[in-house]
Amino acid sequence: MPYTYLYPRPALTVDCVVFGLDDEDIKILLIQRDLPPFGGQWALPGGFVRLDETLDEAAQRELQEETGIENIFLEQFYAFGDRDRDPRERVVTVAYYGLVNLWDHHIQAATDARDAAWFPFRQIPKLPFDHDKIVTMASDRLQGKVRREPIGFELLPKKFTLTQLQKLYEKILGQPLDKRNFRKKILKMHLLIELDEIQDNVPHRAARLYQFDPQKYEALKQQGFNFEI
Amino acid sequence: MPYTYLYPRPALTVDCVVFGLDDEDIKILLIQRDLPPFGGQWALPGGFVRLDETLDEAAQRELQEETGIENIFLEQFYAFGDRDRDPRERVVTVAYYGLVNLWDHHIQAATDARDAAWFPFRQIPKLPFDHDKIVTMASDRLQGKVRREPIGFELLPKKFTLTQLQKLYEKILGQPLDKRNFRKKILKMHLLIELDEIQDNVPHRAARLYQFDPQKYEALKQQGFNFEI
Repeated sequence: MPYTYLYPRPALTVDCVVFGLDDEDIKILLIQRDLPPFGGQWALPGGFVRLDETLDEAAQRELQEETGIENIFLEQFYAFGDRDRDPRERVVTVAYYGLVNLWDHHIQAATDARDAAWFPFRQIPKLPFDHDKIVTMASDRLQGKVRREPIGFELLPKKFTLTQLQKLYEKILGQPLDKRNFRKKILKMHLLIELDEIQDNVPHRAARLYQFDPQKYEALKQQGFNFEI
Repeated sequence: MPYTYLYPRPALTVDCVVFGLDDEDIKILLIQRDLPPFGGQWALPGGFVRLDETLDEAAQRELQEETGIENIFLEQFYAFGDRDRDPRERVVTVAYYGLVNLWDHHIQAATDARDAAWFPFRQIPKLPFDHDKIVTMASDRLQGKVRREPIGFELLPKKFTLTQLQKLYEKILGQPLDKRNFRKKILKMHLLIELDEIQDNVPHRAARLYQFDPQKYEALKQQGFNFEI
């Protein structure tokens, strides 16, 4: 059943740049496209917005359908609307970036996608459409945001060590941080709950585990607290 | 001539929150809608995106058509896509915020708008659609941005005094700033060119005029300079 309008309309899609962290590296979630254009190529998960869903809902749905990942931190960051970004027709896409920890989430390819996989951030293949530009802007936003707000916690397991936290910041910011300074700044924010637990099954001396305190974070944010690292 | 698609499509619009500054206050540019829905009410300037223009071009065009203002600083900040934001049908809008100084720009109502006018920011009427929400988010973005980047210069005349600059920051941030601290921080950024000119036609002692140095700003930005006030 076709749909008719008085004026031409661009198609509207959502695309997701999902960053993941494991013990080695920051990764990005890509799907292998099944259908043309660019069938067989790796690209960002995404798809058309339905009339009965919000943009946020469309992003979560497409991600779930194409990769099996559900209910993660996803934030809209920019709408891309260059005239020739899609070879088929005029398509405007609203882009989201997401954060996920790879210890707790597993991916599974589904509709419209032959496969889904994590690629190390600095080794992703050339992407179709304007997806390279979208990934670059998502990464800039993540860097800016992680400097101002402690969102990086989404990338860590529920209980983590200060070394894991520092490595996360270093990977996102792409530069080494001084250990003493980093710990001083982070602990001064009082955002972490020190647990009465240490790591187990590690080859080195087991380190203290911490947890993020979301209530404390909300309270500090209301006060205009500066989370700068 | 109607346009037919296989799947239903939301309509796509742009809306602009333009902040202006004069000697008194921060203002917002509104238009009085001519057509239903909400005919006669004050609302944000904006309209439908055409197939042959980018989102940025649509925002500049709508602003020009409805208010006469051209080629100003406009930056996209968020796409609003709640299901029921427009009583007619599903409409997704990409929102922009803009900055303009009221000494150099004059407004003129045109197509689809009965009138265009500047409203003091804290005295704007209740707006239709989700425009109140859009204005609130634009204002939050402006506050965040002005703390991190010296974009406020767009709101000032080309040549300005340090007092005018401080007043601008105070109005955007909604709080008084210590004069000595402010001057120290701003001058330490080396973003201002001290001119060999002073104000004329002022009832008080004429103050030194300054100009913003965009080359210097770009260079500092590349180096990751912290512009925090």
